[in-house]
Amino acid sequence: MDKEAAWSIEEILMTESEPIRGSYAAAGVNIDLKAKVIAKIGRQVLSTYRPEVLSGVGPFGGLYEFKGYKEPVLVSSVDGVGTKLKIANALDKHDMIGIDIVNHCVNDILTCGAEPLFFLDYIGIGKMVPEKVETIVQGLAQACREVGCALIGGETAEMPDIYAGEDYDLVGFVIGVVEKDRTISGKTITVGDTIIGLPSSGLHTNGYSLVRKIFGETKAVLGTYYPELGRTLGEEILEPHRCYHNQLKPLLPVIKGMAHITGGGLIGNVPRILPQGMTTQFHSQAWTTPPIFPLIQQRGNVDQQEMYRVFNMGIGMVVICSPEDVNQITEALSEAKVLGEVVKQGRKARVVIE
Amino acid sequence: MDKEAAWSIEEILMTESEPIRGSYAAAGVNIDLKAKVIAKIGRQVLSTYRPEVLSGVGPFGGLYEFKGYKEPVLVSSVDGVGTKLKIANALDKHDMIGIDIVNHCVNDILTCGAEPLFFLDYIGIGKMVPEKVETIVQGLAQACREVGCALIGGETAEMPDIYAGEDYDLVGFVIGVVEKDRTISGKTITVGDTIIGLPSSGLHTNGYSLVRKIFGETKAVLGTYYPELGRTLGEEILEPHRCYHNQLKPLLPVIKGMAHITGGGLIGNVPRILPQGMTTQFHSQAWTTPPIFPLIQQRGNVDQQEMYRVFNMGIGMVVICSPEDVNQITEALSEAKVLGEVVKQGRKARVVIE
Repeated sequence: MDKEAAWSIEEILMTESEPIRGSYAAAGVNIDLKAKVIAKIGRQVLSTYRPEVLSGVGPFGGLYEFKGYKEPVLVSSVDGVGTKLKIANALDKHDMIGIDIVNHCVNDILTCGAEPLFFLDYIGIGKMVPEKVETIVQGLAQACREVGCALIGGETAEMPDIYAGEDYDLVGFVIGVVEKDRTISGKTITVGDTIIGLPSSGLHTNGYSLVRKIFGETKAVLGTYYPELGRTLGEEILEPHRCYHNQLKPLLPVIKGMAHITGGGLIGNVPRILPQGMTTQFHSQAWTTPPIFPLIQQRGNVDQQEMYRVFNMGIGMVVICSPEDVNQITEALSEAKVLGEVVKQGRKARVVIE
Repeated sequence: MDKEAAWSIEEILMTESEPIRGSYAAAGVNIDLKAKVIAKIGRQVLSTYRPEVLSGVGPFGGLYEFKGYKEPVLVSSVDGVGTKLKIANALDKHDMIGIDIVNHCVNDILTCGAEPLFFLDYIGIGKMVPEKVETIVQGLAQACREVGCALIGGETAEMPDIYAGEDYDLVGFVIGVVEKDRTISGKTITVGDTIIGLPSSGLHTNGYSLVRKIFGETKAVLGTYYPELGRTLGEEILEPHRCYHNQLKPLLPVIKGMAHITGGGLIGNVPRILPQGMTTQFHSQAWTTPPIFPLIQQRGNVDQQEMYRVFNMGIGMVVICSPEDVNQITEALSEAKVLGEVVKQGRKARVVIE
């Protein structure tokens, strides 16, 4: 188990010592089962390693050799996937949820221009179901491999008195790096700059509490086929959060600001990168809102403004650049659409969608 | 809110946009309340900042300027505090739980010789209780300040359908650094080396499922005064996990290996740093097991071996050094006790306690 020593933290000790049985197991903590899961997921974890990962050293922490940067800035982010988990549990489908959290975190640090280096996860779960944890970790590893990020650490805590039944929570933590002079902050954005949007793959990881309230989460509801979606509601809303890293990485030098459209939608997220005194003017005709959003709006009788505050409405990442750099981005990314421009704020709101 | 921009991730957007009301709040997510909490904890968070934290840049991620190292290795760890949370909830006392998780994580990376740089937390909670979250963050910030670690990011997720009532889970992530040639791995440990122990402050964060099974967790049980403890059971078992960083930091150059005694006890954790073919021989008379451990053992009729597997039994950190360096350590740390020595394994177990 030496090669996995750098990965697991509490877990690895269970594979080195005999599993704890007897009274501790009787108290609801099945460490024997946990050890089996760890052994199985080890291969997935190793598949994400980069040469910088110092395996077999320091079993209490993940070690990553950090070299080759001039003025590095470490960029970190932590997040969960929210109640999308309840949909995953309702359908007992967990292959996408690990992808969701990695992509969410990687997109977050990408907005600063950062390259992901390594990722750690935490799974709190009511009852250890080995297949479930394995499937989640497979998703984590797959998404990490896609962006060259090492899945360097993880913890799975079985806590039957905190998580009911097979409920669980999944938390992700990413560390990336950007050279200081290449940090993207939005500070250089000026009036006249162009707003470009990249499509989302669906709800990503936001608005699930509202969706669940409107539709419910029975198997019947989630299994209902909607012609406008071309698939069932469950399939649609479990679509994983898309990652923008690989597409946007070569374009970072011409990007002035990026907003990851998560909870809060365009209205909540775009102002986070916008200098004072400016407004982003979006032309709603510039993109087609995917059918899941009007479906939610109609069923829930949700106000249009509220829709733009809770959901991404089809735009997962907003990129702001100078007008002269627009072609470079739209030619490289056929899906990228010009959505509007940065204007003087005056008395307007920070985000106007017309 | 610019200064806090680097700290919060999803949260900060709530302070920049109007709170989401109406149907989203009706779905059980009280974002308005969350924004108030964020504003209040901001001061706590700022109190932990180091000059390396680039505030006001990159609201989607925490930014940390990384400089001054020759061959740096980043050391990371993720952990939770387990069902100690249930005791905190039963007594509605949450000031220590943030200290627990920071100290647990900092001790983990200390075993590799690493200095903590920054910390991120995740709180998943059933119902947002502002005072509770504030108190937890106060504890996080206090423990971070103690070791000069920046509380650079955090996420609080209100998920009423995953966490029942006021239940919550608290997850911590720490990133630290060590120069490659100063990494401590245990690889240089040889037969004849000395085992030194540092006392724990109590249960730390392990064995709570068993303790709760044995005693229960009613207010009456937790409020019972035990003469041998000199305080109530609740006070005893909520004692925060002790941090060894500041004491051990100046001694790192003479330390060959360190084991943080968490779940698995001495038996589970010491082998994690021990080279093949060696056994650690502990003399149980060398230290006094604090009274909480025999109390648990008697009440629960727990086997002695099991006690050493589940609990730290009074030793929170094990340090291994050459016999010639023992005096340096025991003179610097009056609490440090010589517990035994490293011997050839032969047919013995990896950890022998006699």
